Amino acid sequence: MINVGIIGYGYWGPNDARNFNTCEVVGLIAICDLNEKRLNHAQSHYPFIKRYSDPKDMISSKDIDVVAVVTPVFTHYELAKFALENGKHIFVEKPLTSNVAQGEDLINLAEKKGLIIMVDHTFLFTGAVRKMREIIDSGELGTLYFYDSVRVNLGLFQHDINVIWDLAPHDFSIMNYLIDYEPTALSAWGTEHFGRGLEDVAYVAVHFDNGFIAHFHCNWLSPVKIRKTLISGSKKMLIWDDLSSDEKVKIYDKGVKIDNTEGIHKLLVNYRSGDVHVPHIDNAEALKLEIDYFVECIKKKQKPFNDGEAGLKVVKMLEAADKSLRDDCKKVKL
Amino acid sequence: MINVGIIGYGYWGPNDARNFNTCEVVGLIAICDLNEKRLNHAQSHYPFIKRYSDPKDMISSKDIDVVAVVTPVFTHYELAKFALENGKHIFVEKPLTSNVAQGEDLINLAEKKGLIIMVDHTFLFTGAVRKMREIIDSGELGTLYFYDSVRVNLGLFQHDINVIWDLAPHDFSIMNYLIDYEPTALSAWGTEHFGRGLEDVAYVAVHFDNGFIAHFHCNWLSPVKIRKTLISGSKKMLIWDDLSSDEKVKIYDKGVKIDNTEGIHKLLVNYRSGDVHVPHIDNAEALKLEIDYFVECIKKKQKPFNDGEAGLKVVKMLEAADKSLRDDCKKVKL
Amino acid sequence: MINVGIIGYGYWGPNDARNFNTCEVVGLIAICDLNEKRLNHAQSHYPFIKRYSDPKDMISSKDIDVVAVVTPVFTHYELAKFALENGKHIFVEKPLTSNVAQGEDLINLAEKKGLIIMVDHTFLFTGAVRKMREIIDSGELGTLYFYDSVRVNLGLFQHDINVIWDLAPHDFSIMNYLIDYEPTALSAWGTEHFGRGLEDVAYVAVHFDNGFIAHFHCNWLSPVKIRKTLISGSKKMLIWDDLSSDEKVKIYDKGVKIDNTEGIHKLLVNYRSGDVHVPHIDNAEALKLEIDYFVECIKKKQKPFNDGEAGLKVVKMLEAADKSLRDDCKKVKL
Amino acid sequence: MINVGIIGYGYWGPNDARNFNTCEVVGLIAICDLNEKRLNHAQSHYPFIKRYSDPKDMISSKDIDVVAVVTPVFTHYELAKFALENGKHIFVEKPLTSNVAQGEDLINLAEKKGLIIMVDHTFLFTGAVRKMREIIDSGELGTLYFYDSVRVNLGLFQHDINVIWDLAPHDFSIMNYLIDYEPTALSAWGTEHFGRGLEDVAYVAVHFDNGFIAHFHCNWLSPVKIRKTLISGSKKMLIWDDLSSDEKVKIYDKGVKIDNTEGIHKLLVNYRSGDVHVPHIDNAEALKLEIDYFVECIKKKQKPFNDGEAGLKVVKMLEAADKSLRDDCKKVKL
Repeated sequence: MINVGIIGYGYWGPNDARNFNTCEVVGLIAICDLNEKRLNHAQSHYPFIKRYSDPKDMISSKDIDVVAVVTPVFTHYELAKFALENGKHIFVEKPLTSNVAQGEDLINLAEKKGLIIMVDHTFLFTGAVRKMREIIDSGELGTLYFYDSVRVNLGLFQHDINVIWDLAPHDFSIMNYLIDYEPTALSAWGTEHFGRGLEDVAYVAVHFDNGFIAHFHCNWLSPVKIRKTLISGSKKMLIWDDLSSDEKVKIYDKGVKIDNTEGIHKLLVNYRSGDVHVPHIDNAEALKLEIDYFVECIKKKQKPFNDGEAGLKVVKMLEAADKSLRDDCKKVKL
Repeated sequence: MINVGIIGYGYWGPNDARNFNTCEVVGLIAICDLNEKRLNHAQSHYPFIKRYSDPKDMISSKDIDVVAVVTPVFTHYELAKFALENGKHIFVEKPLTSNVAQGEDLINLAEKKGLIIMVDHTFLFTGAVRKMREIIDSGELGTLYFYDSVRVNLGLFQHDINVIWDLAPHDFSIMNYLIDYEPTALSAWGTEHFGRGLEDVAYVAVHFDNGFIAHFHCNWLSPVKIRKTLISGSKKMLIWDDLSSDEKVKIYDKGVKIDNTEGIHKLLVNYRSGDVHVPHIDNAEALKLEIDYFVECIKKKQKPFNDGEAGLKVVKMLEAADKSLRDDCKKVKL
Repeated sequence: MINVGIIGYGYWGPNDARNFNTCEVVGLIAICDLNEKRLNHAQSHYPFIKRYSDPKDMISSKDIDVVAVVTPVFTHYELAKFALENGKHIFVEKPLTSNVAQGEDLINLAEKKGLIIMVDHTFLFTGAVRKMREIIDSGELGTLYFYDSVRVNLGLFQHDINVIWDLAPHDFSIMNYLIDYEPTALSAWGTEHFGRGLEDVAYVAVHFDNGFIAHFHCNWLSPVKIRKTLISGSKKMLIWDDLSSDEKVKIYDKGVKIDNTEGIHKLLVNYRSGDVHVPHIDNAEALKLEIDYFVECIKKKQKPFNDGEAGLKVVKMLEAADKSLRDDCKKVKL
Repeated sequence: MINVGIIGYGYWGPNDARNFNTCEVVGLIAICDLNEKRLNHAQSHYPFIKRYSDPKDMISSKDIDVVAVVTPVFTHYELAKFALENGKHIFVEKPLTSNVAQGEDLINLAEKKGLIIMVDHTFLFTGAVRKMREIIDSGELGTLYFYDSVRVNLGLFQHDINVIWDLAPHDFSIMNYLIDYEPTALSAWGTEHFGRGLEDVAYVAVHFDNGFIAHFHCNWLSPVKIRKTLISGSKKMLIWDDLSSDEKVKIYDKGVKIDNTEGIHKLLVNYRSGDVHVPHIDNAEALKLEIDYFVECIKKKQKPFNDGEAGLKVVKMLEAADKSLRDDCKKVKL
């Protein structure tokens, strides 16, 4: 039995609690929150838990093997560090930390202690992302050309972070997971409209050395909700529309082939247009799969693919985006 | 009667010919093309025209008042200049010229000679763009926040220009027409995949001093065709979907209002969600309206709004985009 | 305080329970189900309720003022009758009864006893249906022409009823609510494919004396889910797409006007095409509004608009549909 | 060389002219129309044609091998009969004739004379219909369950026929072409709103002896244009959306399987939900393919599949629909 304590029972914490609780080899034994009402709410669902209002008390408890940190990002480092120091595996809400130095510190500490860090990039466990990974791995798309992601809506403004820190962790982690090429630099453009000094509309371009390009549009001021990603390759192209209920991933047997270039007016371009395929997407709950995998990693003492390193890579990109935004959208090396 | 001669009877020339021909106060009297077959084709439709294979011969003809230049962009300057020198008004395919210096030269020449330059930014005469202009002018959207344009498809590769020069002239001219703020700088990212040295996927951000941002996605490698523009303001937001047959422009009575910021966890954000309005769009042929307007400007000796200056502004942005692409996506002043 | 007991805690019962429980002037005091597990489940949410496995025991209880009958339709009559005989107001799942005679019996009984019957036609309390009622009442659509409803999907096969009894109660009740004309006859066509003697695909036409027509497509074998209703009038037309998240009701300022008919080739038809309007739809929970209204009707001793009579009208149509199906799709008088 | 004369140069005639003219083994040599202007228009495109204003003059001409009858339906019989009597093959606009007796007469005459009748059911030659035929022939859908067709819009009112005669010939001919089962009866419902005695909204159900059902919604009063057909089978289901530009036909690997029925509450229904496949559709011009096929049939003295019999079958259904409409929507035997 792996005993888990959760810190933070706000928006996402209850989902973690529910999934840890239904995992057969896990004992959900403690929940910590500063807010009394939320703790009451937690206890009405899980009467058997031990309540904490001070996270350090909970973390120090000998009964606990795993700490789930589901708090605002600026608190992650301190809580996660304390947990690792106390010998606990950690399951941390994304993004891992507020900056790269903190992330590296946690990774080193975990390494030293032989503990596991899993960063909760839930999207990686959705049926759609797993299916895209499968498609790309199979080589069906050919050489990859570009990755274009749009995640916009009339969104909840975050208090302490800009729209990139809010939305891009999803897309950066997905892109890192799907695309094997290594990004070399990043530039970001953005603007804000409410005098808070935090961008509400932003664009990020991620550069690679091989001609591949990735681009991200993050926006809290769009009248319509769009969650769409295009991945184009030399053989096929795909679109992931996360808001589609039954056609989330579509694969287009389309392409372009430039045969020859004999002078300026003789370019021979061939367009190919074939069938479209819409694979059935498994709709198992992503968080459940992620937690099962987390438990498996703990048992097997195996690093998860969404470990501290993967989380750190996302933080590096977020930090670079901030730098580029502050420095006139200059290209920042990764 | 205003007598018109057209140079170039390839893809777009026949449209110009048809619309000049149906305009009652215009006489379409000459067509010039290097290709014999195309001239035959032109003559089968307009048996009365005079055929030319050398544009300079046609331009020198005393019978002609107006020259329409419907040739590849690298030839615009020489042909337009010769026409102006010969005292002809010109109707030039977009973009006006291959670089800013050429454009300035033409404008000065036209000024000196009292001649009219109209750049054929046809989109400005579509019902959708005219309706959006009307909406923005009315103040219905409030203070404008951002302009986001996506124009992507599995497109015809151009031989001599990149995807920005091919697609962005549409969107730059539309944005300049709709938005009264003055752009101050521009950055562009792009990549190419066929060893031609010409970008096939590109992103352009246009910067303004007042927090407004404009962004353009131009792409020849998308499996699906998208022509979508979002314009967001403090009061309302609109979406222009040029591929929608009957809901091209949608106005959303939606917005966000940040009332107060008392500390990091006390931000009061109010979202407003109201009706959507889909105005009926006039579907008169844009090119017909444009040519009628051109003739009217000639008669009234009045500068059109899509004159040389407007065309030059687009060329400046294209040139800046090239510069930014060559210089590591650096911000280039406009 | 109005004390409520619920019979049936299967698919829909928990929704009733939740909404009765949150209504301030209602006491949810008893739940009855044949299934022990479901009763346990009910009690875990409402520890204070009294459990029953025999509905007659619960109905006889003096503490109860209202009985909610949320059981399969073939049991409605007996349970509802017993409840009325015991002086309880009833809230009955749709359709009211299995046949017209039963429905009339209940109405007479309620009348005699001064009790209220509300049939749970939840859809009538949705924002979309309330908005359409408002639009039609305002005269905005002009004289109504037709009502066309499609409700199809790969649906849950019901054990004891055909697809009309399963899906059409929604649409019949909505049509009756929105359209003031009185239907005079009905015909139905259908077929079944699994040897059960219960139609899985069916069409129903409802006839009126004034040229208005209503038509319903009910289908458990469609690969895609469609829930769409067209209502056309002489001035405007509307579409209700219940699956649209943010454009459920669209009003088209479109129409046709036949000016004159001078001989066979001289018909002057004018088409009018104007703006489209998408009103904001209130998304308050329909069942909550319905239960609040039920309680208000009890207090004011006022007949609800979705009373026994309204429920009976739907049963009459269902019965007529069965008759038509059995009698070679013949028109059956209503 | 097969010499063709066309009667009727209104809405559809020019399409026939263009396609006959581009067919290499055909000589378009004559066009007949009552309207002088239309004849002028025809001659401007085909200066070599012989003009006729009296169809009988043209039909009697010895130079002509084939007569295309592209006139209003009430004139088909007389013109087609005269053509057959004069030894000409005929290409007749759909529907073949105004009633069954006329159609039978033409078929007998053609048979006697060894002449070919082709009824211009153009839709049968579209890529989408050909692809659906291929899919159904392959057995991919399994046993067919139902055919549901919706063809509605704010349509052009016809002067002399109702909405079924206007729109259903398309769908009846397509259904007959795709579905091998033999229809046994038909019922129709409709209504009209402009005092013309011609239905503008109508529904038709076609009955079969094996549980298959086909249903057609024809409507001139819908605010939106819909052209959608569902074909459902035991293995797969398909949707044909003729207005979709790039996903006209979609095949759903979905189904339902009822394993067993042990008592009323024990029905075991299994739903299967798999991939969706969108085959690439050939977009060759249907009318061109049809005319090529017509010419081939003439040469090979072979009956086309869209011959007089196929055309007559559609007329039988139209006539039955009229009968059902006049007789209180009663089932009419076919």
